[in-house]
Amino acid sequence: TLVFAPNTQEFVVRLLSCLPTHRRPRILTTDGEFHSFARQVARLEEDGLLAVTRIPAEPGRDCLPRLIEAARQGFDMIWVSEVFFTSGAALTGLDALAEAAGEAILVVDGYHAFMARPVDLSAIAGRAFYLAGGYKYAMAGEGACFLHCPPGWLPRPRSTGWYAGGAETPIAYAEDAYRFMGSTFDPSGLYRLNAVMGWLAGLGVDAAAIHAHALALQARFVAGLPAGGLDPTRLVVPVSDPARGNFLAFDLDDAEALQARLAAAGIVTDRRGRRLRIGFGLYHTAEEVDRLLDRLGSV
Amino acid sequence: TLVFAPNTQEFVVRLLSCLPTHRRPRILTTDGEFHSFARQVARLEEDGLLAVTRIPAEPGRDCLPRLIEAARQGFDMIWVSEVFFTSGAALTGLDALAEAAGEAILVVDGYHAFMARPVDLSAIAGRAFYLAGGYKYAMAGEGACFLHCPPGWLPRPRSTGWYAGGAETPIAYAEDAYRFMGSTFDPSGLYRLNAVMGWLAGLGVDAAAIHAHALALQARFVAGLPAGGLDPTRLVVPVSDPARGNFLAFDLDDAEALQARLAAAGIVTDRRGRRLRIGFGLYHTAEEVDRLLDRLGSV
Repeated sequence: TLVFAPNTQEFVVRLLSCLPTHRRPRILTTDGEFHSFARQVARLEEDGLLAVTRIPAEPGRDCLPRLIEAARQGFDMIWVSEVFFTSGAALTGLDALAEAAGEAILVVDGYHAFMARPVDLSAIAGRAFYLAGGYKYAMAGEGACFLHCPPGWLPRPRSTGWYAGGAETPIAYAEDAYRFMGSTFDPSGLYRLNAVMGWLAGLGVDAAAIHAHALALQARFVAGLPAGGLDPTRLVVPVSDPARGNFLAFDLDDAEALQARLAAAGIVTDRRGRRLRIGFGLYHTAEEVDRLLDRLGSV
Repeated sequence: TLVFAPNTQEFVVRLLSCLPTHRRPRILTTDGEFHSFARQVARLEEDGLLAVTRIPAEPGRDCLPRLIEAARQGFDMIWVSEVFFTSGAALTGLDALAEAAGEAILVVDGYHAFMARPVDLSAIAGRAFYLAGGYKYAMAGEGACFLHCPPGWLPRPRSTGWYAGGAETPIAYAEDAYRFMGSTFDPSGLYRLNAVMGWLAGLGVDAAAIHAHALALQARFVAGLPAGGLDPTRLVVPVSDPARGNFLAFDLDDAEALQARLAAAGIVTDRRGRRLRIGFGLYHTAEEVDRLLDRLGSV
């Protein structure tokens, strides 16, 4: 069952609030998690309130086997992205991680996968928490994040919104995912999310179709890259690897300068440090990719 | 300086996250705090993570002196409503509480005062946190809550949104109130809040005028109450006491049944347990109060 929140950071805090308090909780995660989680656990680590083991998120193909191996050591929580925001690499086969997770709380951050790739975690729906939101590929804007809660896990979060249950003593909680509910919030984002989902359903467009469209544009883009410019060998996840999301990440020494030159030519990209990210969406066409390639030739 | 959040519960958690971790923090508050705070601290108290001292919120005139007396015992945090949601009673003279608070974090929950009464806490602006939001008297809908942060207090909340500073190690924080910032959020509510504030300013209507209008309607209402119906002696805060907000709270044995009868007559009221609350707003007229009194005569 699902519960909604204005942002995923509320869920980060509420999930962390379920960890043991009589000893320092142990967390297994990667070094490629999004700021909403990475900053929070780093801060708690500073005060010695958490012990955090971080597995390298790259190369993407090695990350899940390493996580699975580490998980057998025993942790209180395992937190991992389904698609990494710094590389676009996707983890596939999360059921094996669920199997290795033992008693650990398992959380999959699906923000960069939701509506970007087909997601089927039904095999671990009874085991894993899954969070995502509408701000990126679901095109719903802010304020429409959600958490799937497996039944029976974490019935009484210590960070407790007042919508999550009544005012009785002891504090009561909803039995479904509403136990992770916060408080008063603006539902506009949910209406937007519903509108987008209804619109896509009416067009017969699902996440698989969106992903296939983005992959085709990515392939067209990389195949047409002019010589001497963006170097396909600098792709963090090569186009030949299907385990990735809907953007391409180039790892470049001159990422900042290149981004500035692209911007001057009217080409909007995203950059995280030395990673230049180029996104391909449902709303882009092959003709637009060709125009982009033409323009890149003169940058 | 101010910081915004989708709801005040985010601020509750972020403020509580600043408490000491090497011993059980001591909190001084009242038994009349809103659920967003009351439920949260009750839950932490259950696990022995907080020691909470609750001063009776009623009678309203006694609450502040009792808080001041208790405060001298020494607490880590003092949390108090400016206007109580269960009674409408207002605490005036919070500067004396600030003086007695010692080293305690002082938080004033102004939700039921903001835009309902003139609020001037400038004397303790450098000492007290103040939070409120746009959902009630400011007529801005959900998603427009704010926290005033006194300079120097609580520079590094442990519950840390990723907008509150960069990703450096050690975790960096903004020096202004943005240190209490969360993450991605829908700013629509802030536009609504701004629109309402601009509209009121254009009309020359401020919180004092809103409050005076509501008090006049309340006085007209109570003076005209038909005999044998709602009993003015059951008012939690009598109309003769100016230290109150913009609603009247009746304490009634048959509050639930009466609310149902009123609803059947098309009269919308609010009820919290045995407290029937009747709100008087900027958008009500004396003529509407007279019509309400007429209709009450036949309930």
